[in-house]
Amino acid sequence: MTDVKHMKWWGWGLEGVGFHWEDKPAFAPFVLKAVGLDLHTAQPVKPPEFSDISVPKSKATAAFQKSLAGVVGAEHVTTDDMARAVHVYGKSLRDLVRMRGNAVKRYPDVVVYPGSEAEVQEIVDAAVAADAVIIPFGGGSNIAGSLEPLPTEKRVIISLDLGRLDQVLEIDEYSGVARIQAGAQGPDLEKQLNDRGWTIGHFPDSFTHSTIGGWVATRSSGMQSDKYGDISDIAVGMRVVRPGGTIALRPTPSASNGPSVREMILGSEGRLGVITEVSANVRRIPEERVIQAYFFPDWSTGLKALHEISESDAAPSITRISDGRETGFSLATSKESKGLSKFITGTLLPWLMRRKGWTDLEKICLSFIGFEGSPATVKRNKKLVDAIVKKYNGMGVGTSPGVLYDQKKFDTPYLRDFLLDRGAAGDVSETAMPWERVEPLYDATIAAAEKAYADMGIKGWIMAHLSHSYSSGACLYFTFAFVFQDPAKQLEEYDTVKRAIQQAFVDNGGTISHHHGVGLEHSPWIEQDISPEGVAVMSALFTSTDPGRNLNPNKVIASV
Amino acid sequence: MTDVKHMKWWGWGLEGVGFHWEDKPAFAPFVLKAVGLDLHTAQPVKPPEFSDISVPKSKATAAFQKSLAGVVGAEHVTTDDMARAVHVYGKSLRDLVRMRGNAVKRYPDVVVYPGSEAEVQEIVDAAVAADAVIIPFGGGSNIAGSLEPLPTEKRVIISLDLGRLDQVLEIDEYSGVARIQAGAQGPDLEKQLNDRGWTIGHFPDSFTHSTIGGWVATRSSGMQSDKYGDISDIAVGMRVVRPGGTIALRPTPSASNGPSVREMILGSEGRLGVITEVSANVRRIPEERVIQAYFFPDWSTGLKALHEISESDAAPSITRISDGRETGFSLATSKESKGLSKFITGTLLPWLMRRKGWTDLEKICLSFIGFEGSPATVKRNKKLVDAIVKKYNGMGVGTSPGVLYDQKKFDTPYLRDFLLDRGAAGDVSETAMPWERVEPLYDATIAAAEKAYADMGIKGWIMAHLSHSYSSGACLYFTFAFVFQDPAKQLEEYDTVKRAIQQAFVDNGGTISHHHGVGLEHSPWIEQDISPEGVAVMSALFTSTDPGRNLNPNKVIASV
Repeated sequence: MTDVKHMKWWGWGLEGVGFHWEDKPAFAPFVLKAVGLDLHTAQPVKPPEFSDISVPKSKATAAFQKSLAGVVGAEHVTTDDMARAVHVYGKSLRDLVRMRGNAVKRYPDVVVYPGSEAEVQEIVDAAVAADAVIIPFGGGSNIAGSLEPLPTEKRVIISLDLGRLDQVLEIDEYSGVARIQAGAQGPDLEKQLNDRGWTIGHFPDSFTHSTIGGWVATRSSGMQSDKYGDISDIAVGMRVVRPGGTIALRPTPSASNGPSVREMILGSEGRLGVITEVSANVRRIPEERVIQAYFFPDWSTGLKALHEISESDAAPSITRISDGRETGFSLATSKESKGLSKFITGTLLPWLMRRKGWTDLEKICLSFIGFEGSPATVKRNKKLVDAIVKKYNGMGVGTSPGVLYDQKKFDTPYLRDFLLDRGAAGDVSETAMPWERVEPLYDATIAAAEKAYADMGIKGWIMAHLSHSYSSGACLYFTFAFVFQDPAKQLEEYDTVKRAIQQAFVDNGGTISHHHGVGLEHSPWIEQDISPEGVAVMSALFTSTDPGRNLNPNKVIASV
Repeated sequence: MTDVKHMKWWGWGLEGVGFHWEDKPAFAPFVLKAVGLDLHTAQPVKPPEFSDISVPKSKATAAFQKSLAGVVGAEHVTTDDMARAVHVYGKSLRDLVRMRGNAVKRYPDVVVYPGSEAEVQEIVDAAVAADAVIIPFGGGSNIAGSLEPLPTEKRVIISLDLGRLDQVLEIDEYSGVARIQAGAQGPDLEKQLNDRGWTIGHFPDSFTHSTIGGWVATRSSGMQSDKYGDISDIAVGMRVVRPGGTIALRPTPSASNGPSVREMILGSEGRLGVITEVSANVRRIPEERVIQAYFFPDWSTGLKALHEISESDAAPSITRISDGRETGFSLATSKESKGLSKFITGTLLPWLMRRKGWTDLEKICLSFIGFEGSPATVKRNKKLVDAIVKKYNGMGVGTSPGVLYDQKKFDTPYLRDFLLDRGAAGDVSETAMPWERVEPLYDATIAAAEKAYADMGIKGWIMAHLSHSYSSGACLYFTFAFVFQDPAKQLEEYDTVKRAIQQAFVDNGGTISHHHGVGLEHSPWIEQDISPEGVAVMSALFTSTDPGRNLNPNKVIASV
C-alpha cells in the first residue's frame, strides 16, 4: 500500500506521543483551579481500540474502484476501514469526540493516492463523470470541519489524498520562488528548502502535520507572518485541477488582471478543485533569528505597547502577547528542571514585582517579539521595540523563554487529546479585527464564554493571546477548556461554548476565523461576517463552477 | 447641474494645462532623434471643437429619465451631449484618437450622479429592472478600455458617476482605517486625511484625476507601494451595491473566511456591482520622506542592484530605475534654468564618467529610491541601500532629482495629448513578473516593439523603468511612441505596437497588467495570463452574479 504517513485515527500526531504533566509541578494545581479537574485522581481513558469502531461497507462499486486503480495503480486505491477512518475528519474537538465515540455518521468510501497532477486530473474527471464527491485531503489537521462528509450524502465519496505529491520541484533562487507539490508537509518541504539555504517562513501550529495545499485551501497563517505574510501573501502562484482542466496561475508578485482567481482558490477548501502545486515566495534563511520575551504589568497595557510597535518603524517577525491567564498557563506548563517556571517564579518575578511595583501576579502578561535579519538589523529593531516596551512599563527578560516557546510550539495540539482522555474539552477559536476592536472584542468574548459556562453551571476556562500584527489590526487567539458534564452530550456542551465565542467575534467587528478556515464549523456565521450579499457572490461562484456539487459540497457555505 | 469636476472631453487633465517643450532645450533634439518628429516645424492641431462632434440622441426614454430623477433629483440626471462625451471613455490613446476624430460608436445614454449609497442602490435596481446597462464612472482616467460601451449595445446605457460621493467619512485613528466614499479623488481624499495627520500612501500617476473606487475597481498601485502596498493591500474593507442589496465587507486586516470576496471586488471593473465605499488602511504622515537619486553604469547592473535591495534588510518606500533610454528622456525633459539636465550634463556626468570609467553615456541609468520614517530609520535604510549601490558601481547624486521627479510625476499623462496634437502616438504598458524574468522580458519586449516598428517601416521609440519591488518580483513599465503614418489608420498602427508588447509580456512570464486593469484593451491576453480554466472560473463568477449582463458587460472577459 501507500507509504504516506498519517496522524493516529483518534487524535493528534504520532502514536505514542502525547502531553505529559508529571514533570510539570505547577500544571496539576493550575488545571484543578481552572476547570476543577484533579489530574492526580482522574483516570484517563485508554486509547480507543479500532476494533470497537464500526465502519460501514464502502459504497464504491468494484467497477468504480477498478477504474480508479486504472489511473493510480491498485496499490494506491483503498477501501480499507482504517484508511477511511483516518481520512474522515480533521482533528477538532468535535471530530475527535465522534471518532472516539464511534459516532461518525458517514465515512469516505474510497481513498485514492494520486502520484501526479495528470492522475489527479483523471481521478477528478472520472469522479465527476460518475457523480461522485471528491474531498481533497492534505495532512488532516483541519479543525473547522472542512473534511467532513455530509451524513446525508448518498453518492460515492472519494478522499483524495495528496500525500504522494510531496516534492519541492524547483527553486528559482533569483526570484525566491519555489514550486512545491500540494501534498508536501511542513517539515518535509522546509527541509528541502533549508538544504538549499531557503525557508518558506510559514509555521502554523499544525506545521508538523499539515501540507502546503491545505494551507492554501484554508488561508493559513504562520507565527512569523509579521515578516513573511500569511499564506495568501506567500502563495504567489498555483495549479488547481478542475473537472475538465487545470487552472494554471503563474507566479506573479502582483497583478491587475481582474478579480483575483488566486484569491478565490485561497480558502476554497476543495470547492473549486484540487490544488496540486503552489509557487511559494521563499526567502533566504536569515543570518540571525531571535525571539525576545517581555513582561507587561497587564493585558491592556501590553496591547497598547504591541499596537505602538505595529505603528513604529520596527519590523519584527513575530508579535505576540498572552493575557494574564495564558501567561499563567505558560508558566504552569514549564518543566521543573530547566523551565521558564522555576526561573520566573523562583527568581525573576519577586524581583520584577518589587522593582516595578506590580502587585497582581495574575495580571502580568508574557509577550514574545521576534526579530530576523543581519545582527545589525536585529539589534536596531530590538532597540526600537525595547523603547516602546519601556514606555509602557514592560520589561525584557531575555531570549531563554523564546527558545523554549519555539521548541514547544508544535506540541500544543496534543493537549486536546490529553484533556479528552480525562473527560474534558479543550479547543481554540481565533479571529482578526481592527486594532480599535481588539480590547472590546476580547472583553466580550471572555464574557460570552463565561456566561456560557455559568448557564451550564460549570467551571470553565478561557485564555487568549494576540498574535499576527498588521498595520490595521491583529489576530486574537482564544483557547477554552471545561470538564464535560454529561458524557452523552459532549458535542452539545462544546457547541454551547463555541457558539458563544464565535457570536462574540462577529458581534464585535471580528471575522469568523483568522487562519483556521470555515468548513462546516464556522459556516453558520459566514453571512454575519461578509454580509448576505457577500455570501450570494460566493455561492454564485461555487454553484456555477460546480453545478453537480461534486467538489467538497456544503463547506464554507453550508447551503450549497 | 452637478458641480462634479471632470477632465476635458478630448484629453487628459484640466483645460489650459498641457506639456510644454519650449523651456526644455534638450527635448526637441531628443524627440527628433527618437521618433523623427521635428517639434520646430510640426504644426500642432488646435484642440478639437465640441461642435464638430456628433453625439447621437439618447436612448433613455423620458419616462426612464424621470424615474432616475425621482431617485437622485432632476439636477443629477443628464442626457446632455457634453456630459455623455465626458463619460464615454477613459484617456487611453485609443480613447483620445476616437474622441478627437468623432469616431465614438456608442455613447452612454444618460449620466446619473447619485448622492448616497441608498441612491446608488435604487438606481442599480431600477436599471436592472429596466434591463439597462450600468457603467460606474470614477475619475475617467482609465487607459484599458474599462469604461467603453460596446458599439453593439442596444439597451439604455447609464454612466453612474460617483463624483458626489467624495467624503472621508471617518478615520479610526487607533486602527489606521479610514472610511472613504468611492468617488473621492486622490488630492481630495489625501487632503482630508492630511488635515488630520494621515496619508493613504497611494499615489498612482493618475492620482490627480482618479478615485479610490476606481483604484479598487482596477487593482491600482501607487509609486510608494513598496511601503504602503498596492490598493489590494490598502483596501481592507468595502461596500458594493449589487442588484437587490449591498455587499458589506468590514475592515479586517486578514481573514480565513473562504474565497476572498474582497479580492473578487478588487479588479472587477464594475462587473460585480458599484463600489460605494472603501475602508482604507491609512498611516500617519511620516516624520521624514526622502527620494534619493542614483546612477548605475547600465541597465543590467542597475537591475541586479535593485534585486539585491529587495532581498536585503533595507525597507525602502520607492524602488525605481529607468533604462538608458528613459534616463535620456528624463534628462531631456528637464528645464534649462533649474533642471536636472544642466546639473547632470554640464557638471556631473563628465566628472562621473571620468571617475567611474563609464564610456557610454546612453547606457547610464537613473534610479530613485525612497525612504520614509524617523530620521534614524531613513538614515539606516539609506546606508543599507548605499552599500549595495556601491557594490554595483553605482553612485548617489543626492535628493534634488528626486524632488523634481516628485513634483513632475503627475504631469506625465499630458504628454499623450502633446504627441497626439503633433500626429504622434504615445502610450504605456506595464507588467509584473518574477525577478528572474525581469531582464529577459525586458529584452523581449523591446525587441517585439522594435520588430513592430520595423515591420511598419517606421522609427519608433520604447523605454522602460522598473518600479514596485516585491520579494518575488517587480513591475516593468514601458512607454512607447511613434509618428502615425496614415491618419486614417492611427488605431491600427497603435494596435500593432501594443499587441506586440502585450504578447511579449505573457510569452515571458509577465502578467497582462500590473496596475492598469484589463478592460477591453487587455482582455485578449487574459486567457494566456491566467489560463483557460482560470478564465472559466472568472466567467462563471460574472455570468452567475449578473445573468442579465447589466453590470458593465464584456470587460475583463470580452465574451461574457
